[in-house]
Amino acid sequence: MLIPESSLRKFTENIFTAMGCSAEHSQLAADVLLKSDLRGIDSHGVARLKGYVRLWEKKRINTSPDIKIVHETPTTATVDGDAGLGLIVAPFAMQVAISKAEQYGSGWVSVRNSNHFGIAGYHALMAVEKDMIGFAMTNASPLVSPTYSSERLLGTNPMCYAFPAGKYPPVIVDMATSAAANGKLEIAQRLGKQVPEGWIQDKQGNSTTDPHALKTGGALLPLGSDAEHGSHKGFGLGATVDILSAVLSGANYGPWVPPFVAFLDPPTDPVGSGIGHFVGAMRVDGFRPVDEFKSHLDNWIERFKSSATIDPDQKVIIPGEPETEAEKDRKVNGIPLVDAVVKDLNELAERFRIEPL
Amino acid sequence: MLIPESSLRKFTENIFTAMGCSAEHSQLAADVLLKSDLRGIDSHGVARLKGYVRLWEKKRINTSPDIKIVHETPTTATVDGDAGLGLIVAPFAMQVAISKAEQYGSGWVSVRNSNHFGIAGYHALMAVEKDMIGFAMTNASPLVSPTYSSERLLGTNPMCYAFPAGKYPPVIVDMATSAAANGKLEIAQRLGKQVPEGWIQDKQGNSTTDPHALKTGGALLPLGSDAEHGSHKGFGLGATVDILSAVLSGANYGPWVPPFVAFLDPPTDPVGSGIGHFVGAMRVDGFRPVDEFKSHLDNWIERFKSSATIDPDQKVIIPGEPETEAEKDRKVNGIPLVDAVVKDLNELAERFRIEPL
Repeated sequence: MLIPESSLRKFTENIFTAMGCSAEHSQLAADVLLKSDLRGIDSHGVARLKGYVRLWEKKRINTSPDIKIVHETPTTATVDGDAGLGLIVAPFAMQVAISKAEQYGSGWVSVRNSNHFGIAGYHALMAVEKDMIGFAMTNASPLVSPTYSSERLLGTNPMCYAFPAGKYPPVIVDMATSAAANGKLEIAQRLGKQVPEGWIQDKQGNSTTDPHALKTGGALLPLGSDAEHGSHKGFGLGATVDILSAVLSGANYGPWVPPFVAFLDPPTDPVGSGIGHFVGAMRVDGFRPVDEFKSHLDNWIERFKSSATIDPDQKVIIPGEPETEAEKDRKVNGIPLVDAVVKDLNELAERFRIEPL
Repeated sequence: MLIPESSLRKFTENIFTAMGCSAEHSQLAADVLLKSDLRGIDSHGVARLKGYVRLWEKKRINTSPDIKIVHETPTTATVDGDAGLGLIVAPFAMQVAISKAEQYGSGWVSVRNSNHFGIAGYHALMAVEKDMIGFAMTNASPLVSPTYSSERLLGTNPMCYAFPAGKYPPVIVDMATSAAANGKLEIAQRLGKQVPEGWIQDKQGNSTTDPHALKTGGALLPLGSDAEHGSHKGFGLGATVDILSAVLSGANYGPWVPPFVAFLDPPTDPVGSGIGHFVGAMRVDGFRPVDEFKSHLDNWIERFKSSATIDPDQKVIIPGEPETEAEKDRKVNGIPLVDAVVKDLNELAERFRIEPL
């Protein structure tokens, strides 16, 4: 089912408003989710709306938060999100980082007491629009085992770096630090297919191709998949995200991160508040004139895009390119939603007595 | 052959002095290389001394450089290394970043016109000693193919994040963004062994287990090894390092990065100056009190170290832990050098008429 962007946006705003968000917050939260759907990252868009509503019903999301800076220097800050939607808290934090960068060249904000923030790319792109380099990362519910462990101790902990180009779209590296994202397992589950070795392990830590292994105590594997192929590097990246987002801000880290699913309760012995993010912005012209940087980044993009390929039909993909293409298409042709998501959304509409899709 | 740290340090200083480095620069450059050998990263220590000498003989390293800031804001700067040793240029840049962080909370420096800087961890640790979080990365000669490409367009482009802990050693994530480092191929070559699938491809881009494939036009693979296991993420990380280190500073990037080996000439159509680095420092107390951060990082370390393991004999390894253990041991017992390296070093001693090992 193809839904025009404007209808889905209005619908999503209505849901957030019905949850008690202000008009401004409803628009912003909907903008973050829609950006994900527009860019083809279907797992992080309106498909998660039901999840946010359930957390709100459990009083784990505060829809009228007092988000504030609790500690700062000219270029660093810690923000307390007051248990607000990450979709609201992270843009607040990025705005702080951008203001600091405008004044001093760079700005860095660690965030505690927040919730899931949607796609990292949304927040990093806020900086790119100001001719800055954007950084955004977040920790998340534990689903990934460190190398050699059978326990789930880290989230898929995504990191994003975004760079403004000249005649080309921005370069956006936006990646989970696990070998595969949970969304890819769900696709295999729906199709009844096995997944490749190197994505998951079972409860004992044995390699498995069963996409349901996560439900029986298994775990996702860090980027690199196994020790021989550098999974300690994926673990190190996930650890970096966890430390910058939570150990630095006072959020929960590692296995203490509260689960996104409302049917699992948060740990009863928290080591901090909510989940954590880390965002940053650096002015390009803090290093060299913007037009010089952009013209060299264009040259970089052209050189990599035109490189010799293994398969003549598969060109090298510049980070962020497929998402930019999806956005162009979906802005015109609408956003495809699978039936299960439409059903979920219309159940929410009924619950909140708003117009269905 | 086990060499006491002090003898190897003095020897290395003498080589740099013979190349024309000042006493201060000789001590610093030797300190960077020795740190690598002490920490068990044998591929980046004195084993590379011959490589630096050969580049100097080709006049590609300037041993009396005028290293300077060419552009800056309160918290950002671009440094021109004047073709100096990266072992000297990168600590200069990190010192600039630390000074800015002392004043404004954070400092970020992109570097052009430099050479190889040894281990990234050395530079990041300079920040850790000041209770700051340290960042260090560098681009390098092209050996890695992007996903879907048969061309070598990126170096092994390492990135390092280092965090000060309390009662434990710092957490140091210091990793090449390729699946395997070149040093691991060299070990397999010496032993006449095959390497695992997923480390390298041949000239046509086919998967191979031949450790010599790099010499016949093959390439290292990005972290993740293949598209199914997320090699686009390793490519994205390598690209991030390249852009921050070189597109931002005005150094050479991608396939234009000059080779470390002196028998290969640099490209005749450079897009910048020398190779590039990117370093940064953020004061921990720019976010929360240092003792709070350290005590939570200690808790993080304890939780991960004590996690359930797959094999009872293989505990989870905290990033940086094996290197810290090696340093403790080698400081007392000396640094093991293989015969080939001792031979190389003593040939250098003869060439420069200094005392051999």
